[in-house]
Amino acid sequence: MIVLVDQDQVISNFEGQFLTVLRQRYPKLHYIPLEQRTTHKLREQYVPLHGEHFREIIKEIETEPGFFLSLPPIPGSLEAVTEIAKKHDVFICTAPLKEHKYCVGEKYEWIERYLGYEWTRRVILTLDKTLIRGDRLIDDKPEITGLVQPSWEHVMFSFAYNLHIAGKRRIKEDWSNWKEVLPELL
Amino acid sequence: MIVLVDQDQVISNFEGQFLTVLRQRYPKLHYIPLEQRTTHKLREQYVPLHGEHFREIIKEIETEPGFFLSLPPIPGSLEAVTEIAKKHDVFICTAPLKEHKYCVGEKYEWIERYLGYEWTRRVILTLDKTLIRGDRLIDDKPEITGLVQPSWEHVMFSFAYNLHIAGKRRIKEDWSNWKEVLPELL
Repeated sequence: MIVLVDQDQVISNFEGQFLTVLRQRYPKLHYIPLEQRTTHKLREQYVPLHGEHFREIIKEIETEPGFFLSLPPIPGSLEAVTEIAKKHDVFICTAPLKEHKYCVGEKYEWIERYLGYEWTRRVILTLDKTLIRGDRLIDDKPEITGLVQPSWEHVMFSFAYNLHIAGKRRIKEDWSNWKEVLPELL
Repeated sequence: MIVLVDQDQVISNFEGQFLTVLRQRYPKLHYIPLEQRTTHKLREQYVPLHGEHFREIIKEIETEPGFFLSLPPIPGSLEAVTEIAKKHDVFICTAPLKEHKYCVGEKYEWIERYLGYEWTRRVILTLDKTLIRGDRLIDDKPEITGLVQPSWEHVMFSFAYNLHIAGKRRIKEDWSNWKEVLPELL
């Protein structure tokens, strides 16, 4: 099978690292605990809730050189994708930031650092994931839309902002249940 | 329709720029005129023909910072893709070098410079183009293979090393005949 795996918040800890940097750099500002995050994009929750100045702060943190490379791996993720890849064709299918300058290169560098060089050959960068053919897409985004009807089944990777989505198979935030959820990959 | 357009040697002049740099930097070395190029990858022709030292020289030029950004546009290409995009969904579908360090970021930067920021949102980076859904793929690579049967028709973008391929519709090296070749896009 062809298994597509999202990068941010599925194998790399985008939300956790953002919150760490925000609290270190702006200790007096409001912050939203991870378990209270309700929107896929940070600004969609921070700006209405805590003010317009968050728009620039979020952009500053997300787009600065080194941010994407600094993301810690999601616990259990590297072991899981490595194991799935023994029997299936796994691709890291990820959408870069609109501000692509550092993000794009660092996404490849991150993959090389944590999964090894050979995995950089399995990266697919695209904003529209419906255009990518596969059997499964493991992704934290609540609703994934695009130009065409997807060929893959969207398997939800749990995070606070997608817990309201029903009707999809769901992998826990530490990958601990992936074998029960996706027995067809074993 | 969904129209996928390759980047190197279709809209950016990879071969021309490589030859320019090679001749400037190593004026005493052999070089292969563009019209005598017979392989899609430079090293597959240079190394057997002119020696093992070309392996490192090719790598040096291709992988140095600034090379991908320095590629001139292919004449007629920017006008053609801009016009096709008025009626169809066009994506720049391109495979990065194995040495991804500068190539990946500079490919996005090139698109922004020559086609504008909005086009960076239509970039798809992948080594396997058969995984990308589309109706047409305009590409100079003689044979395009991958994990699955492609959904697109491969429309050949002419260059010396693909002239032996028969049975495919073919766009000239200056894009001058694209409207006759692809009337369904008008």
